[in-house]
Amino acid sequence: MVKVLLVLYDGGQHAKDVPELLGTTENELGIRKWLEDQGHTLVTTSDKEGENSKFDQELVDAEIIITTPFHPGYLTAERLAKAKNLKLAITAGIGSDHVDLNAANKTNGGITVAEVTGSNVVSVAEHVVMTILVLIRNFVPAHEQIERGDWDVAAVAKQEYDLEGKVVGTVAVGRIGERVLRRLKAFDCAELLYYDYQPLSKKAQDEIGCRRVESLEKMLEECDVVTINCPLHEKTKGLFNYDLIKKMKPGSYLINTARGAIVVKEDVERALKEGHLAGYGGDVWFPQPAPRDHPLRTAKNPFGGGNAMVPHMSGTSLDAQQRYADGTKAILDSYLSGRHDYRPEDLIVHQGDYATKAYGQRK
Amino acid sequence: MVKVLLVLYDGGQHAKDVPELLGTTENELGIRKWLEDQGHTLVTTSDKEGENSKFDQELVDAEIIITTPFHPGYLTAERLAKAKNLKLAITAGIGSDHVDLNAANKTNGGITVAEVTGSNVVSVAEHVVMTILVLIRNFVPAHEQIERGDWDVAAVAKQEYDLEGKVVGTVAVGRIGERVLRRLKAFDCAELLYYDYQPLSKKAQDEIGCRRVESLEKMLEECDVVTINCPLHEKTKGLFNYDLIKKMKPGSYLINTARGAIVVKEDVERALKEGHLAGYGGDVWFPQPAPRDHPLRTAKNPFGGGNAMVPHMSGTSLDAQQRYADGTKAILDSYLSGRHDYRPEDLIVHQGDYATKAYGQRK
Repeated sequence: MVKVLLVLYDGGQHAKDVPELLGTTENELGIRKWLEDQGHTLVTTSDKEGENSKFDQELVDAEIIITTPFHPGYLTAERLAKAKNLKLAITAGIGSDHVDLNAANKTNGGITVAEVTGSNVVSVAEHVVMTILVLIRNFVPAHEQIERGDWDVAAVAKQEYDLEGKVVGTVAVGRIGERVLRRLKAFDCAELLYYDYQPLSKKAQDEIGCRRVESLEKMLEECDVVTINCPLHEKTKGLFNYDLIKKMKPGSYLINTARGAIVVKEDVERALKEGHLAGYGGDVWFPQPAPRDHPLRTAKNPFGGGNAMVPHMSGTSLDAQQRYADGTKAILDSYLSGRHDYRPEDLIVHQGDYATKAYGQRK
Repeated sequence: MVKVLLVLYDGGQHAKDVPELLGTTENELGIRKWLEDQGHTLVTTSDKEGENSKFDQELVDAEIIITTPFHPGYLTAERLAKAKNLKLAITAGIGSDHVDLNAANKTNGGITVAEVTGSNVVSVAEHVVMTILVLIRNFVPAHEQIERGDWDVAAVAKQEYDLEGKVVGTVAVGRIGERVLRRLKAFDCAELLYYDYQPLSKKAQDEIGCRRVESLEKMLEECDVVTINCPLHEKTKGLFNYDLIKKMKPGSYLINTARGAIVVKEDVERALKEGHLAGYGGDVWFPQPAPRDHPLRTAKNPFGGGNAMVPHMSGTSLDAQQRYADGTKAILDSYLSGRHDYRPEDLIVHQGDYATKAYGQRK
């Protein structure tokens, strides 16, 4: 009999209106009955902040903890030390940086951290392409103009460009970055570039028609649009600070749907205000939920546009929710049945060590 | 010595800030010096409404009138009857429905109406793909939530979908419709459909992987997303009325970057309010500029989203402005030099008859 602790965002009336909102505390990934029929216990909460949160109270004897990147229950070293029964931490979605992975490798002899690889890569890739177009075509100020009853084409056309003929580069070309490039191919960009520690296969590179750049700085110098698609780890935390952003082309665009902490938010705000960045957009923040005074909620370029931020939602479309609910159930079943036949690509840390290179090339 | 009358939108300070805003009354497509050096006269205005507008005053002796779809000087039969010297009407951009083409064929023995074919087809196609993604991924309510300081993922995820796996259809598959389909190919839609009086070449159809549907109603029944890419003419005016929209799938999306008058605005508003349409977006209105109380400025679906309208800007990106300014100059030069060696694809009516089938299959 296993105790499962599930941390999700609240859906409230929305979850009742739309039963497909599986990733909410109300709809619980659709696993309650399935777990209870097997005699297991499920505790679900959205209360995850502060020392007396429900999350903190319940994790002390949970064997499995499930959370999402959209409303992450942060598994710090301190919390892991308190979780004496913990064996398995599942990310319902992709991106397990809310877990202190080094600490996880030492917790209770090495817990397993698994995520549902692939469950929302398409959703995020679509969101990236949307955000590029929203920024480069200056959608937000234009829509706001219409809503408030105005009509001034020049005011918005003055910063409206075509994506055609521009240079776009991705930081990392994993499952999401590659899908972004494939979706951009038909837009006839001047060039599609990528920076990654490992190259794409020659076949993929030829199909897409992209080029690898050996140095991040060199890639940034060439790009009109940069999209960040790497995981958050020791080497990418704070990577896009003011110095690095200044190496980007003046008037270029930065899209981040990876993790908020990969950029220094005050530095993005400054570069946007100065017009060095023409736009910044994406759906990731640190911490999450973003506080009301987070500077990237309202940072704008000198023309009053260039902000395409949304809450952390790119990977939580209703289509994606179905996929990550299914994937979470499969990982649970693999554990609870004792088969432990996980999909290798889902494992982040396992048996006391990193099971993937994606979280950085460590010693 | 020829008098040229040019109707554009005002740029004001924006035109001074950004000299690339060629399509403004201040920057005049960059043709003033070139015309005056040849001894011709250029009169430029944005004042085009009402009987005493500058447009009405100046057109009586103009030999050439140039206007754009973004701020169109409507050449009605009444105005054409007053334009005794008119020989050539140029659309700086694409779409000459602001000219009464039947009347133009009878004016002064048949004037020439020409547009800059291809000058902004890519710009519009990009805008269509952007608008599809903005609607299906529920971008607008999500961005508004961030701007006003809130955080409620469920409220926006409840109507967020992936484009992958959906059926998308275009009404007409001309230069813009085909480019939309080509850009959608990599998004792995369930199917890409089109309705047009003439089929794509087999080669293009195979490259895109799309299918022609013989009846508009049959196509609409199958589509999650419909994009309108046909010209406005007698047979498409008011085509998307309530009856036709009700033949679309419940919860589907309609994108119109063609012409505002192709839809009945009150019927779109009603279908959106009822939730039959999950979203409506685009950049075309009738009339233009849209009045402050135009219902499609603020029409929403029952969840409070589903509006992705902007002013008429998709074809007036700075990249497109350069192309249509160049194209207009080429048509002018062809006329003023007496060569009359127009690109055949630019001619809409010429020598008293329609030069294209694009404006409907007439008797």
